[in-house]
Amino acid sequence: MSDVVTFGEGMIRLAPPSNRRLEQTTTLEMTVGGAELNVASGVSRLGLTSSWVSSLPANPLGRRVRNRAREFGVDTSHVVWDEGGRMGIFFVEYGSSPRASSVLYDRAASSFCELRGATFDWPAIFAGARAYHTTGITTALGEPTAEQVAASLAAARGAGLVTSYDLNYRKKLWSPDKSRAIQEPLMALVDVLITTEEDAEVVFGISGTDYREVARKLADRFGFKVVTITIRGDLSVLHNTWTAIAYADGAIVDDRVYDLELVDRVGGGDAYAAGFLYGLLTGDVSRGVRYGNAFSALKQASWDDFNFTTLAEVEAQLGGAGSRIVR
Amino acid sequence: MSDVVTFGEGMIRLAPPSNRRLEQTTTLEMTVGGAELNVASGVSRLGLTSSWVSSLPANPLGRRVRNRAREFGVDTSHVVWDEGGRMGIFFVEYGSSPRASSVLYDRAASSFCELRGATFDWPAIFAGARAYHTTGITTALGEPTAEQVAASLAAARGAGLVTSYDLNYRKKLWSPDKSRAIQEPLMALVDVLITTEEDAEVVFGISGTDYREVARKLADRFGFKVVTITIRGDLSVLHNTWTAIAYADGAIVDDRVYDLELVDRVGGGDAYAAGFLYGLLTGDVSRGVRYGNAFSALKQASWDDFNFTTLAEVEAQLGGAGSRIVR
Amino acid sequence: MSDVVTFGEGMIRLAPPSNRRLEQTTTLEMTVGGAELNVASGVSRLGLTSSWVSSLPANPLGRRVRNRAREFGVDTSHVVWDEGGRMGIFFVEYGSSPRASSVLYDRAASSFCELRGATFDWPAIFAGARAYHTTGITTALGEPTAEQVAASLAAARGAGLVTSYDLNYRKKLWSPDKSRAIQEPLMALVDVLITTEEDAEVVFGISGTDYREVARKLADRFGFKVVTITIRGDLSVLHNTWTAIAYADGAIVDDRVYDLELVDRVGGGDAYAAGFLYGLLTGDVSRGVRYGNAFSALKQASWDDFNFTTLAEVEAQLGGAGSRIVR
Amino acid sequence: MSDVVTFGEGMIRLAPPSNRRLEQTTTLEMTVGGAELNVASGVSRLGLTSSWVSSLPANPLGRRVRNRAREFGVDTSHVVWDEGGRMGIFFVEYGSSPRASSVLYDRAASSFCELRGATFDWPAIFAGARAYHTTGITTALGEPTAEQVAASLAAARGAGLVTSYDLNYRKKLWSPDKSRAIQEPLMALVDVLITTEEDAEVVFGISGTDYREVARKLADRFGFKVVTITIRGDLSVLHNTWTAIAYADGAIVDDRVYDLELVDRVGGGDAYAAGFLYGLLTGDVSRGVRYGNAFSALKQASWDDFNFTTLAEVEAQLGGAGSRIVR
Amino acid sequence: MSDVVTFGEGMIRLAPPSNRRLEQTTTLEMTVGGAELNVASGVSRLGLTSSWVSSLPANPLGRRVRNRAREFGVDTSHVVWDEGGRMGIFFVEYGSSPRASSVLYDRAASSFCELRGATFDWPAIFAGARAYHTTGITTALGEPTAEQVAASLAAARGAGLVTSYDLNYRKKLWSPDKSRAIQEPLMALVDVLITTEEDAEVVFGISGTDYREVARKLADRFGFKVVTITIRGDLSVLHNTWTAIAYADGAIVDDRVYDLELVDRVGGGDAYAAGFLYGLLTGDVSRGVRYGNAFSALKQASWDDFNFTTLAEVEAQLGGAGSRIVR
Amino acid sequence: MSDVVTFGEGMIRLAPPSNRRLEQTTTLEMTVGGAELNVASGVSRLGLTSSWVSSLPANPLGRRVRNRAREFGVDTSHVVWDEGGRMGIFFVEYGSSPRASSVLYDRAASSFCELRGATFDWPAIFAGARAYHTTGITTALGEPTAEQVAASLAAARGAGLVTSYDLNYRKKLWSPDKSRAIQEPLMALVDVLITTEEDAEVVFGISGTDYREVARKLADRFGFKVVTITIRGDLSVLHNTWTAIAYADGAIVDDRVYDLELVDRVGGGDAYAAGFLYGLLTGDVSRGVRYGNAFSALKQASWDDFNFTTLAEVEAQLGGAGSRIVR
Repeated sequence: MSDVVTFGEGMIRLAPPSNRRLEQTTTLEMTVGGAELNVASGVSRLGLTSSWVSSLPANPLGRRVRNRAREFGVDTSHVVWDEGGRMGIFFVEYGSSPRASSVLYDRAASSFCELRGATFDWPAIFAGARAYHTTGITTALGEPTAEQVAASLAAARGAGLVTSYDLNYRKKLWSPDKSRAIQEPLMALVDVLITTEEDAEVVFGISGTDYREVARKLADRFGFKVVTITIRGDLSVLHNTWTAIAYADGAIVDDRVYDLELVDRVGGGDAYAAGFLYGLLTGDVSRGVRYGNAFSALKQASWDDFNFTTLAEVEAQLGGAGSRIVR
Repeated sequence: MSDVVTFGEGMIRLAPPSNRRLEQTTTLEMTVGGAELNVASGVSRLGLTSSWVSSLPANPLGRRVRNRAREFGVDTSHVVWDEGGRMGIFFVEYGSSPRASSVLYDRAASSFCELRGATFDWPAIFAGARAYHTTGITTALGEPTAEQVAASLAAARGAGLVTSYDLNYRKKLWSPDKSRAIQEPLMALVDVLITTEEDAEVVFGISGTDYREVARKLADRFGFKVVTITIRGDLSVLHNTWTAIAYADGAIVDDRVYDLELVDRVGGGDAYAAGFLYGLLTGDVSRGVRYGNAFSALKQASWDDFNFTTLAEVEAQLGGAGSRIVR
Repeated sequence: MSDVVTFGEGMIRLAPPSNRRLEQTTTLEMTVGGAELNVASGVSRLGLTSSWVSSLPANPLGRRVRNRAREFGVDTSHVVWDEGGRMGIFFVEYGSSPRASSVLYDRAASSFCELRGATFDWPAIFAGARAYHTTGITTALGEPTAEQVAASLAAARGAGLVTSYDLNYRKKLWSPDKSRAIQEPLMALVDVLITTEEDAEVVFGISGTDYREVARKLADRFGFKVVTITIRGDLSVLHNTWTAIAYADGAIVDDRVYDLELVDRVGGGDAYAAGFLYGLLTGDVSRGVRYGNAFSALKQASWDDFNFTTLAEVEAQLGGAGSRIVR
Repeated sequence: MSDVVTFGEGMIRLAPPSNRRLEQTTTLEMTVGGAELNVASGVSRLGLTSSWVSSLPANPLGRRVRNRAREFGVDTSHVVWDEGGRMGIFFVEYGSSPRASSVLYDRAASSFCELRGATFDWPAIFAGARAYHTTGITTALGEPTAEQVAASLAAARGAGLVTSYDLNYRKKLWSPDKSRAIQEPLMALVDVLITTEEDAEVVFGISGTDYREVARKLADRFGFKVVTITIRGDLSVLHNTWTAIAYADGAIVDDRVYDLELVDRVGGGDAYAAGFLYGLLTGDVSRGVRYGNAFSALKQASWDDFNFTTLAEVEAQLGGAGSRIVR
Repeated sequence: MSDVVTFGEGMIRLAPPSNRRLEQTTTLEMTVGGAELNVASGVSRLGLTSSWVSSLPANPLGRRVRNRAREFGVDTSHVVWDEGGRMGIFFVEYGSSPRASSVLYDRAASSFCELRGATFDWPAIFAGARAYHTTGITTALGEPTAEQVAASLAAARGAGLVTSYDLNYRKKLWSPDKSRAIQEPLMALVDVLITTEEDAEVVFGISGTDYREVARKLADRFGFKVVTITIRGDLSVLHNTWTAIAYADGAIVDDRVYDLELVDRVGGGDAYAAGFLYGLLTGDVSRGVRYGNAFSALKQASWDDFNFTTLAEVEAQLGGAGSRIVR
Repeated sequence: MSDVVTFGEGMIRLAPPSNRRLEQTTTLEMTVGGAELNVASGVSRLGLTSSWVSSLPANPLGRRVRNRAREFGVDTSHVVWDEGGRMGIFFVEYGSSPRASSVLYDRAASSFCELRGATFDWPAIFAGARAYHTTGITTALGEPTAEQVAASLAAARGAGLVTSYDLNYRKKLWSPDKSRAIQEPLMALVDVLITTEEDAEVVFGISGTDYREVARKLADRFGFKVVTITIRGDLSVLHNTWTAIAYADGAIVDDRVYDLELVDRVGGGDAYAAGFLYGLLTGDVSRGVRYGNAFSALKQASWDDFNFTTLAEVEAQLGGAGSRIVR
């Protein structure tokens, strides 16, 4: 009975403190992340209810991921527990110019990738829900997860949910060709496509003179109700700009550009997706873009995959909050 | 027998490390702050003697604040101890664009706010002193402290001290109307008014075409010997500019503008006040502005309410110190 | 629809790392505690469902306490939010012989103590629940909370719940006389009394030749269905023993004595209460005592008010787990 | 050209600080361990040369393990680098009574377990060496590593090295039956067997009235030149005793019993093996037992798998060093 | 105008966190210590006034030591500042059985050891004071400091102060022979000798059947008014006992034996000296022994050279405080 | 048999975390640095072999420096051990505008400065090597080290090595006049001079209209085969630019300018020297400049004197790597 359901891998996230290199650090900060889990947590943070579907190993690391989801109010009753499995892990290194930030994934053979013995009753999971969200990462992880993506999108469509899909191409997980071959058939089941201009070109070979044209071409080719494209300007490793546009009903929606003094850009796209879904479900596409951008910009000025930004803070940004200290 | 006496609340200051949110952090860095205590510590740091008058709870947190004052050489012999009282606390969150920094105060029912059983022998406290400093925060905290502000200013004036008052308007503590009603009668007892342009308008309804005009109008209305206005430019959350001007004897004194890569802006105004008083007491208004600006700029590039900047470092800035590493 | 409902204050808990003194430390570890919240979290940890009823300030600290409860699966939908209120805080110092550990409370004027504008629909809250637990701390905090304790116990009794009450005498909150005067009338509404021998004597003036006699006298005087007494042996500050006995249906139940290399004894009694309620609701009084003791002993060998011990670990203790490393 | 060669997996070791639970901690301390790597590092620490043979992923975690080995002077020129592989990880939780310490292994699919594309030229590796050491863990990890154990022992025997094998039974890696079936044939190639009484019974079904008899039976059955048995007394989780005996040439060698205030028992057995090999190669079996015990006892009073104890500290223990502070 | 004056070196104290080895740690905890400075801080902590005389380098480390002294209320106006000098440093490693704790000194060429250009006007320093304390460490550091010890003791005797001397033999600083040759002449100027049985034998060749006889022999030989001997029982590295006795006016004073779960024994003797002087100056020798023992026992259960124990805590120990948590 | 040999002091490096002042911090981060050791470690990091020649005290701090060198694969077999000596230490404070970063050296009386009893068999050390590097710091430390610089340069020239010398003027170690007097005679033995424009003027009085002219004049005056000048632009304390040029065979080589978001500029020049020597020995002067600049720029965006940058990362920069996150 959650408003939004998401499906994907939850992972332990380990990062050196400050700006230490992974090869150098003697301590790691431990938290939790994962694209679809981030979206579920963000949607809940903003005030809707959400449920996250996944598989976790039955050990302290698996419980920790479950706990973190619950901390944000995410329903975890559909998580499957895997005896003896392993937890996926990723390591984040924070850079500064000219050293870019980087992520090292260690998710091979994880409980989620293998989905051993996991069955998901999608119709039951979707009962009463309004939207479903997953990403190209889940599709890329292997056959077991790709099958569930197909089954879940079909079930969500059947149950009348808004289906949302973040293309999220990861070149270490699959080739552009394989990515296109597997994802193209799924696109007919997707209402809202979230992507970057680069991913649209790599995966579907779609490019254009500008973001607007790419969005329109995507919508035209696949029949998406909404295409929303996030746009990051890398002025330097620590100084970025951020905005997003959307194309829906034949028109473009755009928004202000945020200037970011980056703390942690990992999870920025997921925060946008969460804010966009929140705005869409509580208003319209334009509200989605504006809430998505503000929620993402504030997230990128904060540490962690999860976003501790409040709805009031988002709305203060939309109302023109400045840089002065708040007392 | 201190050169400068200040009166106000000392507080425990708790801040998440790095740029963590308060809702997110599992550790807090604990230090000590408070507008008038910051000024006393800064004056002592620069080489004059100072005394801080206050009330503290008789528990480890109260002793800690006392210890910190002593660490900076501040005389604490006039502090009143309150059995069973509570220590005021404030929490600082460091932001980065577009997320502003913020402060959460938890000073309700503190030993200082209530001043239970505290009596201050102001004439004895001021014996041998040259200047007295307090702020609008102390006046705002409630009747007990407002009464002492009035009594202390009168006593200081009577004892021939230079009286200094930082307007420091805090909207969570009182309304503009109440602030004006209570403070206007006190202004006749003040020699040096320290303020921002914004506070001057909010509290006294005084505005002008520029800082200079505001300063002159304040001096004209209340008869201050000196009005000094601090001027912060919020280029971004982490990049500010800083300067101050003063109006005295019918003339404006100004100074270079400092470019700040902010570490911790909390306490920046107090550092200016301390540097200004130091400069004023060891020279003149112009020296006050220059020492105040340098002391404040260096403080804002350092962590903590208290300012570990040395007089030699201040003077190196005044002499044109650059950005190169000092070996 | 939770199995167990609890009512009481949640607090931010701040503790110096290692064995630093509060007056000495420059960092604090921040977590969450509170007697009844600890019990709710423990019951949920062991596998039943639980709900915690309270009032929290609408600020980051209040949200943090709410998050922590949710992390443990505790239902927080009955928490009342207080705009502008303050969060109760307590500070823990860990000792070693001959320096005892200590706790400094800073809960004056907290949102929970004042319960401003809070109303609790007890019959609705108790719908479907099996047991209700609160403590003498909540009764001691002031009239607003004492009134709710009385109302809630009556409602729980009316709804057919098992009512559980931990005497938990705190001498800084009230005198023995006041404690007796206010609590004696409540005892008629209590099914399960949890106490120490010392508290039974201080509050009710009941003593005896041994624990067994005290338990029997308490049951006889007030008509409790169960009296359970926890027994701590303070061999040194860091080396304790722990056990508990119960009296029910005219008979005494006892259990093995645990040898504790203490990490953190704060919350040990609450862990016992949680384990006891779990055992009672899933079995009988004897199971309650055994699960309570094991859950408490393992908690005291771990840090934090909340208890990360799993049911499997409790049952391994009951099955005779030793001191060897588990690989 | 190292004195001692070892073969086995190196792992990243992650441990919560202080006594936090893994499910609870927000930071992890990162270091390096692995039975045979520990032995190589210990032998080098005491003054002989050593070489560690293994496979590591070509990423920052793999380089970190290599760096740590080099930090202790261990030759890593025979390490094979695996592009795209993953690093084995283990997590250590430190307990206190009644909560035992525990280790969670996450080594599935690691570069070492799979040994993809790794070939080892054992005769070249052993050129000039005096002893070779590996353990039952390496044999247990899978067919690729078990094959290398067999090949390496044969090559070492052929090259005239002393062969040393620590039985190190791990029940999560294999069953007693499988363990016996695979290891029994290897025993003919082993000169020095290191074991505990428990492992001797689990793996080979050999028990006796005391340690001495077990050692003699092992030597008789398999023809070992030396059998050395380590003996830990678990008085509590944090208070242990430690000693070891050896059987060689028909006689028993024993040593004093060490009283341990445990800091970190993980790696204690490996420290014994390193000290034993050092003592054996620079003296005889009796020297091996005494150096092994002292090196292990001092390691267990220190943190980390690797042992920062110096030879001088070992010899001070052998000379009767007491508990007084050393200035 | 302080009650107690002390003279000696202040040092930066660096210690690995937890129980890490110095060769192993990547962080150090930085604080301040030094025998005579510890005594001055302890005396002030208990409620008398104190002054510490020394020489410090004019750099951030020197200022830090000065700040720390001031934090405890110690008068530092007689400290001499040395341009270009270096700060003495010592490193502490905390052990556990069988690994003893250890201290590594790095004080060569420090500002205090060399006392370059430092002159001390002892009569002025002692004006109004009641007692003077220094130790054999200061005498051992070299000719410049030994000369000041002689001069200061003579001046203190001349000014009618109680002179106190802690023998504190350090074998790395000088030989027994040299120690005796230089210190014997000073003893005629000493009223209160503080020592251990071991040091009395090493330095003066005085031994006896028990502590009592040693104290009496010392008093007889040198004419001390009081001899007080501290007695530590090293049950293990982390478990000690502590007491002290005194001999004065022909009689022995003794006290209870404290059982210590050691946190940090460094500075334990200095805490005794501070408590003893406090007790002596506010009462008599017996009070000195009892306050000294309690102040020292509580210090050794706390971290740091300086002692954050309060007078109230000392008196609670004297009144029989137990191991229970203080709420 | 290392490719590159360096000679100089290794030091313990202590730095406050984040941006704390040294006078303020309660913890220090401990690592290892020293100009010539940094170069040896960098050369090894990039793939050549290196050896570092020095003297270290035989204590845990000395071993730690040795360990760190070994961790990077640097050969330490020519290090001389000094019983009873002291380790040089330096303290780093990280600034932000307008507060510059600073370094406080504490190397007086260190084992390396005094070189007590140290003899170096330079011909043996240089056997098989291709290049030798030292710096003006080593020459400045005193007569013992200056003599070894002269002897080693002569021996290196005699053995046919490329000799490299970084002028590295330190005004706290000697005057310009003394610096010139001692270093001028050495220049005839140097093939590669590394310097800044400022140092060239201070030491040799050589200036020019631009970097190119300075380089050419230096080469002309002293007959260097290569002069390479590093060029830092201090836009602010945290924002710098970096590049270097070289003059060789009558021609200038230059390279792109790097934009730096500084993490730690200490060691930036040494990283350039290491990268330059690597490029020179594996290619030519132009390759030296490009590898030096990239290796230095990436180092300055990382913490620590040692550079964890990999050869692959350097080559990615040379290939145009951008600011996007690497996944």
